[in-house]
Amino acid sequence: MIDRIEAYVEANKDRFIEELKQWLRFPSVSAQSARDSDTLACARWIKDHLAAMGMEARLIDKGGKPIVYARAMGRAGRPVVIYGHYDVQPEDPLDQWQTRPFEPVIRDGFIYARGASDDKGQVFAHVKAAESILRTGGQLPREVVFLLEGEEECGGDALPRHVRDEKALRPQAVIVSDSSMYDERTPAMTYGLRGIAAFEITVKGPNKDVHSGSYGGAVANPAVVLSRLIAQCVGPDGKILVPGLYEDVAPVQEWERENLGRLGYNDAVLKDELKVPRLFGEAGYSTLERLWARPTFEVNGLFGGYTGQGAKTIVPATATVKISLRLVPRQDPDKVRQLVLDYIRSICPDTVRFEITQAHTSPPILFDVNNPAMRAAQEALRFGFGADPVFIRCGGSIPVVNTFVQQWGCPVLLMGFGLDSDGAHSPNERFKVDSFLKGARASAHLLLNM
Amino acid sequence: MIDRIEAYVEANKDRFIEELKQWLRFPSVSAQSARDSDTLACARWIKDHLAAMGMEARLIDKGGKPIVYARAMGRAGRPVVIYGHYDVQPEDPLDQWQTRPFEPVIRDGFIYARGASDDKGQVFAHVKAAESILRTGGQLPREVVFLLEGEEECGGDALPRHVRDEKALRPQAVIVSDSSMYDERTPAMTYGLRGIAAFEITVKGPNKDVHSGSYGGAVANPAVVLSRLIAQCVGPDGKILVPGLYEDVAPVQEWERENLGRLGYNDAVLKDELKVPRLFGEAGYSTLERLWARPTFEVNGLFGGYTGQGAKTIVPATATVKISLRLVPRQDPDKVRQLVLDYIRSICPDTVRFEITQAHTSPPILFDVNNPAMRAAQEALRFGFGADPVFIRCGGSIPVVNTFVQQWGCPVLLMGFGLDSDGAHSPNERFKVDSFLKGARASAHLLLNM
Repeated sequence: MIDRIEAYVEANKDRFIEELKQWLRFPSVSAQSARDSDTLACARWIKDHLAAMGMEARLIDKGGKPIVYARAMGRAGRPVVIYGHYDVQPEDPLDQWQTRPFEPVIRDGFIYARGASDDKGQVFAHVKAAESILRTGGQLPREVVFLLEGEEECGGDALPRHVRDEKALRPQAVIVSDSSMYDERTPAMTYGLRGIAAFEITVKGPNKDVHSGSYGGAVANPAVVLSRLIAQCVGPDGKILVPGLYEDVAPVQEWERENLGRLGYNDAVLKDELKVPRLFGEAGYSTLERLWARPTFEVNGLFGGYTGQGAKTIVPATATVKISLRLVPRQDPDKVRQLVLDYIRSICPDTVRFEITQAHTSPPILFDVNNPAMRAAQEALRFGFGADPVFIRCGGSIPVVNTFVQQWGCPVLLMGFGLDSDGAHSPNERFKVDSFLKGARASAHLLLNM
Repeated sequence: MIDRIEAYVEANKDRFIEELKQWLRFPSVSAQSARDSDTLACARWIKDHLAAMGMEARLIDKGGKPIVYARAMGRAGRPVVIYGHYDVQPEDPLDQWQTRPFEPVIRDGFIYARGASDDKGQVFAHVKAAESILRTGGQLPREVVFLLEGEEECGGDALPRHVRDEKALRPQAVIVSDSSMYDERTPAMTYGLRGIAAFEITVKGPNKDVHSGSYGGAVANPAVVLSRLIAQCVGPDGKILVPGLYEDVAPVQEWERENLGRLGYNDAVLKDELKVPRLFGEAGYSTLERLWARPTFEVNGLFGGYTGQGAKTIVPATATVKISLRLVPRQDPDKVRQLVLDYIRSICPDTVRFEITQAHTSPPILFDVNNPAMRAAQEALRFGFGADPVFIRCGGSIPVVNTFVQQWGCPVLLMGFGLDSDGAHSPNERFKVDSFLKGARASAHLLLNM
């Protein structure tokens, strides 16, 4: 079976690429209302394309941009959902593009266009995988459902609403290809995501900015108090000092530590990329462990008093910090939130007032790498890319993954076909043609073996 | 002699007030070029007024707004300089004035107008004192020189330039009435000013703001590093932690401590004014000691990363703080600057880069309260106001005083006739008519007894 599919992909690859170029020509910039009709046309095009492949396809209206839904029946069992998005980032700065963002061209083995990697190219690999199975008489072992949203780049909630409404669907797994391979040769399965708990703390001193000559020495300076609060939250060795914060942290397991070691991560490259004199983080952990498996306490922004040019000698009325903690598996964002609130309350001096606002939280996620769906995805990547995939985690959060986990409780197969160097969200976005075709082969393998 | 002068003031007080009103009608807002001709007319009016009193008067052009110069010969010895300024602050917000800012009115014993207290009213008390002596046949023991600048409110440097050019003048003392009495009944002599050393420190991390999920845990967060630097500069007890900083601080002398105690300063009033839950400052010192005689370390402003609405999960590229230290007598601003630079260098971790920019410095000042000129001023205030004057210091700096001290090395008699509640720089600025007349009597006493 898989041989027939391989032959089909090989025989039709030029057409596949031409079709992808066609899809990439829609400037489906969801954040720009002037492009609403283009975005809608883009959704209709892929819906029609999926229908022409023999799938039951339609647009679902949940408010906002429509969700493209397409279904192919399978032999039995719970369905597999393929998630992706057809909307793209704005293309500016336009003058930094070497070719026009919505006129795809192939250069040096890459297809250049806005959306090439994020996410149309990756989605289209799955679309062509489904076509290859359906057109070669293959029968899908499970029902396959495409869910392609049009609001990923503009933070809409049509898709989360749809997933909540379709809670009963309970798929076997959700496939998400909206991320990167480990490197150009090495495909990767992402099995862990950090969570987040974000806050804003404002320390309030005098009722207005006051002259630092006339009042300095008589009242607490809110910016100094705030600085000390921050310094009391995270130590010079990178340890978070909020009591109880590490209590529920899932330790890095032995296999993971070995796995991370094998990845051959190069600190020098990161140091050079960020142009920092030295990397830094919690003592006792490697860079990858710190990025993927350890919580962090970061100041995202701070401000208070006079921030213009030159000097203004005041004691500021207030000082504010935006903080976010990255959370790791088994940490509960609500518990962390409470620990931070209690701690700040306990250390804030009584010479000032303070206000804490909770911004948002998102739980960490860890998938069992031994889950059959994960194993199947690993095999599929090995088949498609001809290389052993590695298991990685991700330091950030992917909100839609939380939606799937919360509503459907199933594993999410984060298998990116892109590269970090694809320039998603940047000028000259591109996607490797070879990865597109390998991704299609991997996807077909997965759909046949779930 | 002084009786004759008192009688003259009493007999002419209504005219004095009318003349002051006339002077206050000039909208001499030096910061607004649209008012340049009004400001010049204002200078000419007071110059002509001084000339009509029999003084040798002229405008001195040092670039910028002219300096009003007027001289009356004395019997012998070095001259006495009376400093003041004829320019005023802008009047906005205009809608908060009960009567028009440049149409002076008298209400409840106060004259209301922009410049009434700051500084025309106070200057005019000295002008009328000189007139009272000159018109009653009194002879001045010393030459009296008026130096009235037109750039005090816009930070011009015509006056400093003039003083430097007239270094040889070396007056016995400079009289400055551009400040406040201790309270409505109690005149005050200010004998100490704090100095200042200001800095801006920028901590530099990654070469751009980076995603806190993808990079958080691998690089030092400049805002966290900056917060810790600040927390390491000043302790939770208000002590400055920069080594050597207190080395040269002149201790509060026994008589001063007693004097401060007698002033009956009320912490509760300040706490209520600033609406802070508790006052705060260096342990072991009273509020007035902390405000007047102890150095402070203040953050005047800080900023870094994302400061807009909501959250943005980044590790900022940089974080910046504006710092100023208030210095007290015997501290050398240049030495302090070096101590701070050395300390920051020694504590800043090697995971970031940093930049320190020095903003400005100004030395602290302490006058000997037993200097004959200070004694004479004290007597004059007692005579004019019928109350014992108190000795106070000031937590801020007055740049022009530094100019006088640096160029002429003479005592500056800081004897304010205004009140803190006069609303200088605010709507409904006012000056107590009674203080104006008492100020004139005090000034006459001083000019006769220096």
